[in-house]
Amino acid sequence: MKTLRVELDERSYPIYIGSGLLGRAELVAPHIRGRQVLVVTNETVAPLYLEKFNAGLDGYQVDSLVLPDGEAYKTLDTLNSVFDRLLERRFDRRCTLVALGGGVIGDLTGFAAACYQRGVPFIQVPTTLLSQVDSSVGGKTGVNHPLGKNMIGAFHQPRCVIADTDTLNTLDDRQLRAGLAEVIKYGIINDPEFFQWLETYLDRLLAREPEALAWAIERSCRDKAAIVAEDETEAGTRALLNLGHTFGHAIETGMGYGTWLHGEAVATGMLLAAQLSERLGWIGHEDTRRIEQLLHRAGLPVQAPGELDSHRFLELMAVDKKVQDGQLRLVLLKGIGRSVVTAEAAAADITAALEAHRIA
Amino acid sequence: MKTLRVELDERSYPIYIGSGLLGRAELVAPHIRGRQVLVVTNETVAPLYLEKFNAGLDGYQVDSLVLPDGEAYKTLDTLNSVFDRLLERRFDRRCTLVALGGGVIGDLTGFAAACYQRGVPFIQVPTTLLSQVDSSVGGKTGVNHPLGKNMIGAFHQPRCVIADTDTLNTLDDRQLRAGLAEVIKYGIINDPEFFQWLETYLDRLLAREPEALAWAIERSCRDKAAIVAEDETEAGTRALLNLGHTFGHAIETGMGYGTWLHGEAVATGMLLAAQLSERLGWIGHEDTRRIEQLLHRAGLPVQAPGELDSHRFLELMAVDKKVQDGQLRLVLLKGIGRSVVTAEAAAADITAALEAHRIA
Repeated sequence: MKTLRVELDERSYPIYIGSGLLGRAELVAPHIRGRQVLVVTNETVAPLYLEKFNAGLDGYQVDSLVLPDGEAYKTLDTLNSVFDRLLERRFDRRCTLVALGGGVIGDLTGFAAACYQRGVPFIQVPTTLLSQVDSSVGGKTGVNHPLGKNMIGAFHQPRCVIADTDTLNTLDDRQLRAGLAEVIKYGIINDPEFFQWLETYLDRLLAREPEALAWAIERSCRDKAAIVAEDETEAGTRALLNLGHTFGHAIETGMGYGTWLHGEAVATGMLLAAQLSERLGWIGHEDTRRIEQLLHRAGLPVQAPGELDSHRFLELMAVDKKVQDGQLRLVLLKGIGRSVVTAEAAAADITAALEAHRIA
Repeated sequence: MKTLRVELDERSYPIYIGSGLLGRAELVAPHIRGRQVLVVTNETVAPLYLEKFNAGLDGYQVDSLVLPDGEAYKTLDTLNSVFDRLLERRFDRRCTLVALGGGVIGDLTGFAAACYQRGVPFIQVPTTLLSQVDSSVGGKTGVNHPLGKNMIGAFHQPRCVIADTDTLNTLDDRQLRAGLAEVIKYGIINDPEFFQWLETYLDRLLAREPEALAWAIERSCRDKAAIVAEDETEAGTRALLNLGHTFGHAIETGMGYGTWLHGEAVATGMLLAAQLSERLGWIGHEDTRRIEQLLHRAGLPVQAPGELDSHRFLELMAVDKKVQDGQLRLVLLKGIGRSVVTAEAAAADITAALEAHRIA
């Protein structure tokens, strides 16, 4: 087992990465406050891992809430069903929430913990590659709104993260690939050496070799934790983590939550960012080609959906959180491993890039 | 105009108290971030003060949302209507929310600001006595849940508070009296001199003499700010501010939100706390009598509603945020101006106090 520490002053916390971690009481117990624990999970994860996880909670008053699976349920309504349960079972302010599942469960449960009685602790137990490398670091929690993804939320750091790589064995291929999109993202943002490693060893990840997966998760978490530690509330450099996300959120919202997986939309979004950067003359075609090829090898989509014309696409991008005083800010590239936040791309450039690379 | 500063490190903010403050651009402008401003108010306050307030926002992109009036609307659903508006109008992360109204508008708007895009600034413009002395200090925001009051929320400090005493002229008598309950509370908690002042000058407050009101508001805010500065997130002494609230919330929830005004429920709750303290031998009957008399002179209810039997009452109290690991913690009295947080009152004592003082 590897232990990585996210350094955020008094909100610092450990990430445990490895095999056979579910159900290990000594990892969970030090991070539980009070006696009452609510484990929030979904109908896909519950039959696989709920019993195993709860075995590590002997002696606590444990309750579980099994939600429907999918991005379409990351809503205020589902959030309210968590509050219903907490209040029906008389959970007080000294309780702890556990998110056992992927990114949707993590974001939703974290936000419930941020708001319940104005804030209770929570523990992340991510069971997908995407959530192990992404949502478990950084404390961003929240739900979607029909008009925009992650528009309602809070910064709320977990007490600890338990990333058991065994849970990836039951992940379907599409989910694994969606997770790889975020892994590749860290290479493109500021870790060219990692990008190169991925070019060399991608097949091992696709074959789910445990050592390769554990290493990629650790490196991704480390890269992300370094950026978050520098800028917890996204006043500056943290925005780099949104590479591909402004394009990606437009795809997710425009196609209906859940139609494209988050990682799939981010993959296409990252390539669009590269193509736009190339159009602006910031990177050469070789960089774009390397990014496209790696994403393609990972089985990820590399073209924007034909259903969204460029006008609608731009409209959806305009509600993104990265907009400031009406000015769209994007993460673009000056090279692989050299990303920048910029407001320099004009709407015309974005439209041209979209037109050129959309599925006809 | 008086300016009082709430000291909370980088979240410190000023409270402006006085006459003729609405519409003064130089008070608002320094606290607005960005160009987009959403003023949230209700159907009672809007016709009286919305235009006047907005006159001070020349040059901004101003939008207003007028909600129905009343505690019954302090819900997740109403909160969502604020998000709807913000997103429909493309409000970005550099926008500012304004709460123009009483405690419900303040709590709800503050919570919307806490959650919108994971946090945007907001300004409190309280227009009731209750909100001027209470909800505008301390940063508690939130909404109710059918199973408990203020169960969903966040700590989110305003950028400034503008308490225009002129707005109290249009307040109906019942609302004014409900506000006096919280004013009296500060005397009982830890300011016996203020309690005595209230015994002497209550009639001037009831007659709405502007100087008396301004002084009572300032003193109340000062008392509250001192406690909040010491304990922003209610780890300890801040709980004293909940004097009368555990009983009061039970009345509000049990009778249906809005049936009893918050201040009315708190008044009865404070007297119940005094009666229970007397039963425990912590204060003499003379103290209880003085509290009862002052509340009675202020036109406030001093008996728990007959509709709630003591069993149901205790059940409702048990979901309060002051419960820790199943133990009910109450604010009780060792004297007027000497309140304490305690878990020493047994259910039997509470039941006996309720039985003795409920409306038959």
